[in-house]
Amino acid sequence: MTTPAVPDLNIPGVYRIENISVKEGMPMILDMTRAVYPHDDVYGQYCTVQDFIDAPPDEVFEYLSDPRSLEEWTYSMRGFEETEEAGLWISDDRIGDNTKIYTRTVSSPDARTVDYHCAWDQDKHLWMIYLMRVIDAQVVLNKPGSVVLWTNCHHPFYDENPYPETAPSDREPWVGDFWELFYAGHLMELRNLKAICEHRYAHGQPITPEWMR
Amino acid sequence: MTTPAVPDLNIPGVYRIENISVKEGMPMILDMTRAVYPHDDVYGQYCTVQDFIDAPPDEVFEYLSDPRSLEEWTYSMRGFEETEEAGLWISDDRIGDNTKIYTRTVSSPDARTVDYHCAWDQDKHLWMIYLMRVIDAQVVLNKPGSVVLWTNCHHPFYDENPYPETAPSDREPWVGDFWELFYAGHLMELRNLKAICEHRYAHGQPITPEWMR
Repeated sequence: MTTPAVPDLNIPGVYRIENISVKEGMPMILDMTRAVYPHDDVYGQYCTVQDFIDAPPDEVFEYLSDPRSLEEWTYSMRGFEETEEAGLWISDDRIGDNTKIYTRTVSSPDARTVDYHCAWDQDKHLWMIYLMRVIDAQVVLNKPGSVVLWTNCHHPFYDENPYPETAPSDREPWVGDFWELFYAGHLMELRNLKAICEHRYAHGQPITPEWMR
Repeated sequence: MTTPAVPDLNIPGVYRIENISVKEGMPMILDMTRAVYPHDDVYGQYCTVQDFIDAPPDEVFEYLSDPRSLEEWTYSMRGFEETEEAGLWISDDRIGDNTKIYTRTVSSPDARTVDYHCAWDQDKHLWMIYLMRVIDAQVVLNKPGSVVLWTNCHHPFYDENPYPETAPSDREPWVGDFWELFYAGHLMELRNLKAICEHRYAHGQPITPEWMR
């Protein structure tokens, strides 16, 4: 099947080889490519970290898709209990003193995406969204294992708590106070995930531990 | 349902609040957080770009999941024709002189992922994988629209063409020669996608144009 004649694309701000040659476009591309990039340019609006994990993607996905895995690989989410609402979990986020955090996991085995929909203090609006995806490293890196992608978007509620009345009265920090540290913090946690998965896989253990089954 | 007692996690290299306090961990996190990051640290192994698009996520997804959309929003992929193998398309990649590029699109409406499995010159091993995902901006940014995530992984074939016998004999560049420019090039193309989708949506036109239907 041949594509029919493609109409001209008369849309401002679109750079295509028809309207800007490689020779003309290269200075722009080279100017966009820098030796270094400021923190806020890279991690200010979207915070993405990614890493290779030497363990099978289906097993890493299965582990991540159970919210109780957060009990192991996150720095501070502990004591998960399922609420009366199926699939909605409550736990402590110990980085926030006596903070409760709610989590609902939405996963898609087809694309191996795992999204954690979370919020501190209240479960009516889960606005802290942790977007994760497990990729088969054989396909993208030509070796067995997994690549895990993890993105958070800078939701405006990070800048101001919209539900202050639901917070413990004596709590000092707000989750958004840590936004600037999300890159480092999430990279540390992703390395936790890597260490846990690789340790278990290397020792012939299931990635998802017995206590979660 | 209460989580049963969680066994101790005795795995080296895992940083958790139980083995490193906030006070102890903060210097490490602050040290990982830099004013600037070198290009290769951010974009050397994985190249991720992302942007907001003021157009509905289901329509952006539908557009992206048709490989002929690449004809419009990429800089140099043109003249798409479906091969005899269903779902496998051939086109020109004009940035590579007289290069043919093969594309198979694997998309998942459930997670709104669109993966382009591509290769220059040959269709037996599609190793250039463009991993994209369309997110509902209402959920992650509290406003209508889409967030598009796009990641490429540094497959070893970018460094050396494993099938040189399939290349046109007179072709100079190799696709991997551009790896260092992928961040800027993909950001430019993502902005093309943004401009096209926003233009059409703002003008009440369908994102997927008539000629693709």
